[in-house]
Amino acid sequence: MGIDPGLSRCGYGVVRQKGRATEAAAAGVIRTDKDDPLPRRLHELQNELAELLGAYRPDAVAVEQVLFQVNVRTAMAVGQASGVAMAAAVGAGAQVFEYSPTQIKKAVTGWGGADKEQMGKMVQTLLGLRQPLKPVDAADAVAVALCHLAHRPAASRIWAAT
Amino acid sequence: MGIDPGLSRCGYGVVRQKGRATEAAAAGVIRTDKDDPLPRRLHELQNELAELLGAYRPDAVAVEQVLFQVNVRTAMAVGQASGVAMAAAVGAGAQVFEYSPTQIKKAVTGWGGADKEQMGKMVQTLLGLRQPLKPVDAADAVAVALCHLAHRPAASRIWAAT
Repeated sequence: MGIDPGLSRCGYGVVRQKGRATEAAAAGVIRTDKDDPLPRRLHELQNELAELLGAYRPDAVAVEQVLFQVNVRTAMAVGQASGVAMAAAVGAGAQVFEYSPTQIKKAVTGWGGADKEQMGKMVQTLLGLRQPLKPVDAADAVAVALCHLAHRPAASRIWAAT
Repeated sequence: MGIDPGLSRCGYGVVRQKGRATEAAAAGVIRTDKDDPLPRRLHELQNELAELLGAYRPDAVAVEQVLFQVNVRTAMAVGQASGVAMAAAVGAGAQVFEYSPTQIKKAVTGWGGADKEQMGKMVQTLLGLRQPLKPVDAADAVAVALCHLAHRPAASRIWAAT
């Protein structure tokens, strides 16, 4: 499961590898209400993630690393959401990994400077979808999961390629 | 319960009001190992806080707001820890409040620019302790709790003063 952490919108994407093919089992966005107090929103996010983790039981959860953006207030909320997400994933028995935005772009498109559109197109191609995956936060989360598949230990990759 | 959030050291302090007196029911520091992976440390913090919240069942949990410091990496870890703490507190049924460092200093010492030593002395005085409360993270967490008592709705304050 890949997670693109956020408080207003937290993307998630569950992918499965079947032989050489990768398919999306689920992808979507958890939203919390901007008008609710911050602690309640974080708790809601925790609950929704716990439910998803319980339903899909992923072996591994990959979380996009939060870097400092222009908007310091937003970065802090995203950081708080990522903290909640990582704790929930460990609580659900998953192995948890963090990848930087550059690592994710590089793993999915081959280039660390790829833009949103390129990323969306590659996620669509890699999953064999007819239409781009929407909303964009769900596609971003799938990209995080695909990045983890590309970074798994060599043994797993060899297994997946046979 | 007051919480001074942190990943390496997270202070907590439980205070009770008995008539006009305020007493500390518990105060201490939750530590997580710097050598452990971040997700595991966040999950450990979540578990330890859930245990304390279950043991003391506070009506209210006051958390010190995380502001951006010089060290951006540290601020992000503290933010992630605060996110976990707020979600855990809501999960335990407490009302959760955030106070800025300036609000806390002002509520405890009367001056928003107070230093660590002054804060420690006032916490000691307000709780009627013979020695300063140690370690400093525990005293800081008690200060957050005391700040909340000072900010409660007027009705509670009048009740406490009679």
